[in-house]
Amino acid sequence: MKGKVYLVGAGPGDPELLTLKALRLLQSAEAVLHDDLVAPEILQLIPSTAQIHNVGKRCGKKKILQGEINYLMVALAASGLRVVRLKGGDPLIFGRAGEEIETLRRNNIPFEIVPGVTSAMGAAAAAQIPLTHRRASSALVLITAHNASEKDAVEKDAWSKFAASGATLVIYMPGQNYSDIAQRLTTAGLAGETPCAVISRATTKHQRTHRTTVLDLHRTPQLAAPTLLVVGEVVRMADPAALVEGFAMPDASKAHDGLRPLALFKTFVPRAPHLGRDRDKDKEPVA
Amino acid sequence: MKGKVYLVGAGPGDPELLTLKALRLLQSAEAVLHDDLVAPEILQLIPSTAQIHNVGKRCGKKKILQGEINYLMVALAASGLRVVRLKGGDPLIFGRAGEEIETLRRNNIPFEIVPGVTSAMGAAAAAQIPLTHRRASSALVLITAHNASEKDAVEKDAWSKFAASGATLVIYMPGQNYSDIAQRLTTAGLAGETPCAVISRATTKHQRTHRTTVLDLHRTPQLAAPTLLVVGEVVRMADPAALVEGFAMPDASKAHDGLRPLALFKTFVPRAPHLGRDRDKDKEPVA
Repeated sequence: MKGKVYLVGAGPGDPELLTLKALRLLQSAEAVLHDDLVAPEILQLIPSTAQIHNVGKRCGKKKILQGEINYLMVALAASGLRVVRLKGGDPLIFGRAGEEIETLRRNNIPFEIVPGVTSAMGAAAAAQIPLTHRRASSALVLITAHNASEKDAVEKDAWSKFAASGATLVIYMPGQNYSDIAQRLTTAGLAGETPCAVISRATTKHQRTHRTTVLDLHRTPQLAAPTLLVVGEVVRMADPAALVEGFAMPDASKAHDGLRPLALFKTFVPRAPHLGRDRDKDKEPVA
Repeated sequence: MKGKVYLVGAGPGDPELLTLKALRLLQSAEAVLHDDLVAPEILQLIPSTAQIHNVGKRCGKKKILQGEINYLMVALAASGLRVVRLKGGDPLIFGRAGEEIETLRRNNIPFEIVPGVTSAMGAAAAAQIPLTHRRASSALVLITAHNASEKDAVEKDAWSKFAASGATLVIYMPGQNYSDIAQRLTTAGLAGETPCAVISRATTKHQRTHRTTVLDLHRTPQLAAPTLLVVGEVVRMADPAALVEGFAMPDASKAHDGLRPLALFKTFVPRAPHLGRDRDKDKEPVA
């Protein structure tokens, strides 16, 4: 029997945010190679008969090289096993899947990619931030902050483009040096009052959200990894209950039209809200 | 009893790409308001005792206004029901969720957002395109093409910024006017040879992928909606088996280093691939 590799997204943290397909594949896996960031509750779904390998590389301290992961994955599948390569979030962004796909093709190993809920969506859902909004942002940019030193000039230039576009930015792996990130965002051209949210351990019971601005970002408390930084006007719409200390509400007079902090906990009035105000040409895409 | 609204992502199409949480909420829903693009197999999961409302707005032909959706959602929850507002993909991008959240807060209706697998991830997984890659793209931009006429100058400027950044672009709702999109991508500064893929009905059994370039994009066949357009060097790594007629392989001599069409179906050789070549400082984020 020929084995097969499934490159599977484990979602943002909450085990209930696994897909049905991911669950089925984990429950029938014969070998699992997983990242450090996959929750223990998810690993408990794997049958006790399966081999489990933690192939995580975290915070620069590698236990294992990418080439070793590739080798293990190929060797296990070639020996006939159903192998799940389990990655946090979605497998196809910021996860080195491109190199694993090349290896699998080169070695003629059948494989399939199973998408997952990426962390940006998990964090935004948990903090109640619409990532795009008709009045604030019509695009979403997903970037990482971790490789700044490697290709600094290129990255700096790209960040300036993103800042100038007006898109919502989601920065994966911002690290703990918020002064540095704030400096890079400012250099990229973002105004000091641009709202930001740092979301720590999104969708888990340990989740924390810190809302701030580019100007005050350097005062962000140290929150547990993994964290994610959302930057843009849409952050004004974050769940007001999710705020932690250190956040100053923006001056309402400067707030973007219609994005002022929302009046909450009003008495329920069952009237049709804004009927007739939405006769625009928007269609509703699969998002 | 007070009702509650769950804004739930239905994923990109395949019912198995629902999250476990979405399944649980659908199975215990008392009322469901769903978009047109949600698959019939997913709607069959809803108990027969629940009210089901199709509130889809598609291709500009609205059956229902956003204000009416808001009203219905609030009225059902206020009458004590567990309401699922089911959106294709993820609820927080390109789905007007911001307005629904404002309405729910204003009317003091408890609500929760349940993220889903967004179409970009579904399409990329199905076509085997790594959306970021160390050698090709370190950022992902999600945009729509549908509102070009409304705010043309702003959009044009933003597209130029994205094109100049070198990021992978995923264009939701590209429509069927590929000449127009090609023109906009060219005006934004993208080279004619930039690879593109149009993915139709991703993750369903009707899925089709058409790989082309910005130059030849106008010759794309009419594929069934929903479609999604991926633009960038990473498209060279798409599944070679997913090609349809009309695609010319890029000239290997011009191909990006390391991203030449991959040598496939070689005999399996169980050796360690690229050992020692990966001693960079990359960390592995949740993606």
